[in-house]
Amino acid sequence: MQTKILLDEEEIPRRWYNVLADLPSPMDPPLHPQTQKPVGPGDLSALFPMELIRQEMSPDRFIDIPAEVRDVLTLWRPSPLYRAKRLEQFLKTPAKIYYKWEGVSPAGSHKTNTSVPQAYYNMKAGIERIATETGAGQWGSALAFATMLYDLQCTIYMVRSSYTQKPYRKSMMHVWGAECIPSPSTKTKSGQAMLAKDPDTPGSLGGAISEAVEDAATHSNTNYSLGSVLNHVCLHQTVIGLECREQLQKVDDYPDVVIGCVGGGSNFAGISFPFAGDKMTGKHKEIDIIGVEPASCPSLTKGMYAYDFGDVAGLTPLLKMFTLGHDFIPPSIHAGGLRYHGDSPIVSRLVHDGVMRAVAYHQSEVFDAALTFARTEGIIVAPETSHAVKAAIDQALECRKTGEAKTILFNCSGHGNFDMSAYDAFHAKQLVDYEYPDELIKQSLARLPKIS
Amino acid sequence: MQTKILLDEEEIPRRWYNVLADLPSPMDPPLHPQTQKPVGPGDLSALFPMELIRQEMSPDRFIDIPAEVRDVLTLWRPSPLYRAKRLEQFLKTPAKIYYKWEGVSPAGSHKTNTSVPQAYYNMKAGIERIATETGAGQWGSALAFATMLYDLQCTIYMVRSSYTQKPYRKSMMHVWGAECIPSPSTKTKSGQAMLAKDPDTPGSLGGAISEAVEDAATHSNTNYSLGSVLNHVCLHQTVIGLECREQLQKVDDYPDVVIGCVGGGSNFAGISFPFAGDKMTGKHKEIDIIGVEPASCPSLTKGMYAYDFGDVAGLTPLLKMFTLGHDFIPPSIHAGGLRYHGDSPIVSRLVHDGVMRAVAYHQSEVFDAALTFARTEGIIVAPETSHAVKAAIDQALECRKTGEAKTILFNCSGHGNFDMSAYDAFHAKQLVDYEYPDELIKQSLARLPKIS
Repeated sequence: MQTKILLDEEEIPRRWYNVLADLPSPMDPPLHPQTQKPVGPGDLSALFPMELIRQEMSPDRFIDIPAEVRDVLTLWRPSPLYRAKRLEQFLKTPAKIYYKWEGVSPAGSHKTNTSVPQAYYNMKAGIERIATETGAGQWGSALAFATMLYDLQCTIYMVRSSYTQKPYRKSMMHVWGAECIPSPSTKTKSGQAMLAKDPDTPGSLGGAISEAVEDAATHSNTNYSLGSVLNHVCLHQTVIGLECREQLQKVDDYPDVVIGCVGGGSNFAGISFPFAGDKMTGKHKEIDIIGVEPASCPSLTKGMYAYDFGDVAGLTPLLKMFTLGHDFIPPSIHAGGLRYHGDSPIVSRLVHDGVMRAVAYHQSEVFDAALTFARTEGIIVAPETSHAVKAAIDQALECRKTGEAKTILFNCSGHGNFDMSAYDAFHAKQLVDYEYPDELIKQSLARLPKIS
Repeated sequence: MQTKILLDEEEIPRRWYNVLADLPSPMDPPLHPQTQKPVGPGDLSALFPMELIRQEMSPDRFIDIPAEVRDVLTLWRPSPLYRAKRLEQFLKTPAKIYYKWEGVSPAGSHKTNTSVPQAYYNMKAGIERIATETGAGQWGSALAFATMLYDLQCTIYMVRSSYTQKPYRKSMMHVWGAECIPSPSTKTKSGQAMLAKDPDTPGSLGGAISEAVEDAATHSNTNYSLGSVLNHVCLHQTVIGLECREQLQKVDDYPDVVIGCVGGGSNFAGISFPFAGDKMTGKHKEIDIIGVEPASCPSLTKGMYAYDFGDVAGLTPLLKMFTLGHDFIPPSIHAGGLRYHGDSPIVSRLVHDGVMRAVAYHQSEVFDAALTFARTEGIIVAPETSHAVKAAIDQALECRKTGEAKTILFNCSGHGNFDMSAYDAFHAKQLVDYEYPDELIKQSLARLPKIS
């Protein structure tokens, strides 16, 4: 039995898959933060190049990947699909477990799948600098890599708690020529406001987004770039799922269960959308698609499906999504990439419609799963990814009980080489399992913007 | 043009290549440290399992790789061979540059190629625990991974300067269940002696070897394991060069130049021995094989080809090799894996005979080359590996001058994800280019053991 299922470079997808084309009814549109009218391309042009705005709103089922972008993708794609033989043996499960290994990219996670096309389209549009935010630092380093390829400057607002926990992510951004600033910072008005409210705040993704958006909106040579949540980001990540489908076909298989961790939703979207499309169009009706989030930031499992801002300061369009409230500050858990109050609108819609579902886990149980994975498959995953590992293990153990030989596929979205302090904390039994009191979530949801 | 040249899992070599079979005359034998008589298998049996001793002394050209070992190798092998298209363009060189990317292994370097078979043969021999040393931590983490697979305990003496510079390598060893102790330690007599001499010593590979050897020799359930230098270690690494030859054949190419960095010599041996064999047997006479070492620890370029101990305390057999003297303590440069006073006896012999040659570089110039590599190919290499990158770039620039379209192959032996503090120091212009005064090297060489 093969350990890795590989594809040739020519088999890198030539087109991204746009799941919007297969929704039974259109999405609720994003609304302008002030007027609450649906936003048009013009409203977004201060932040994004026109081609990304076109992709954000496109109804087309497939969108061509530029040849120049595909050529860069060959640096790490197609990524290997592994059969987790050792993990299966350890769990004594009749299930087949496959994982897509995205840690082979230069920045060590799936994030480069979208940072490269985003930097490319910005370069084509004549933009000189890109501002962005980063949680755990995976997105920031991925964008630093991509902007370097196209000779763009790059400014990254990194959530302060991760900036402190993961100093070497910043070093990586420096190697690729980017500037990295802890957020909240004094560089922006939104940062100043957050610091005035709480000088010791650990920061949040929503807060760092405010700073990056403000930076881009107030500098004419600068665009903004987002590493998750938006439609075009999820679109670029579909190379993951498209490759998986090809790879599984080579061994005559198809998943019963598809799993990814969810912060903003992009890696989960990437592996699952092609399969969600199969499900919605009736090609494979029974597939179970599971997004896994931290119990300390449970937007899909305890949030509300409603219009909300994407950021703390209320600068972004209003998005219809599962949210805990835009000023919800999750505790500083080690999976910094999952500390986001909202979710991708498409993922939210598909969860709302029952095409997908969500589960939540505490950090100590997911690190326990990550240790099992490291000690069987050899790979030390990022804390974010460990959520997907935990769900896959639970599914496989369920199969041991029922005797079912399900095919389980999960997205092994990134390595944990820059997250070893979290493993140290786990070994020292210092990880705290935060659970937000429902009452506090209720209060934060009560502050959602009123839509007229 | 392809970026990566891949092989299928079935193309992982089935046999290691033993270059000893193609030497024009036999090697000088290792000598017993006390009697100075050639050591026999029995002399080594307190430290190594018999199968590894057999491989150490074998005259056979090929040695079968056990199926169980090959199955583990599939977790990361065959490793990709990259054509460095972007680097070539940046350098405006007519040369073709290929690099073998060994950073895809679980521990992030080539070291797992030998840690797995070493742990396997020890398990087969009924050994319960393995003691070893590590410099930069790549070998220690590789052995931690391998011993975990076979349920062996593992104790790692890590050179103190690297233990401090790279705290997360230790975390990685913990994830895989190993114990990691800074060396010199108070746990062994040799450690105690080194500390008595200099309580603030940064430690050295030679010193850590003494501690690990003493640990193994004084515990009956414990064997010793070495990550470089010895013949069987170099043998296991030949999968690298054997795969490269296959991969280049697929694009109808063959190297004019083969490059690897040299500490103890194993990754250099791994990529070069199959080509050195081709050269010695007359198949390809003109190939230029270059080992690259740090100017601060210049064993091949400024050492003496003589019998010396492999460790500081004089516990190991006497090996005929290039050495700076077994009590030579190199400065604490960031490429901790290259801080070794000696070299593989086979590599030494081949350099001595002119089959290979050696060059030395300072750390600031190799980090400069590593930055060029990260900014073109995207990969952030380990400080050790950056020495090979620098030599490859110099060769390619030479081709730009001469107009020659040489084929350059180098071993990209590991990633630098755990070495970012070194990149920070480089950016902060804090790297010091040590050069040992020739007088001091002379003094240290004057203390070589007298062979009667």
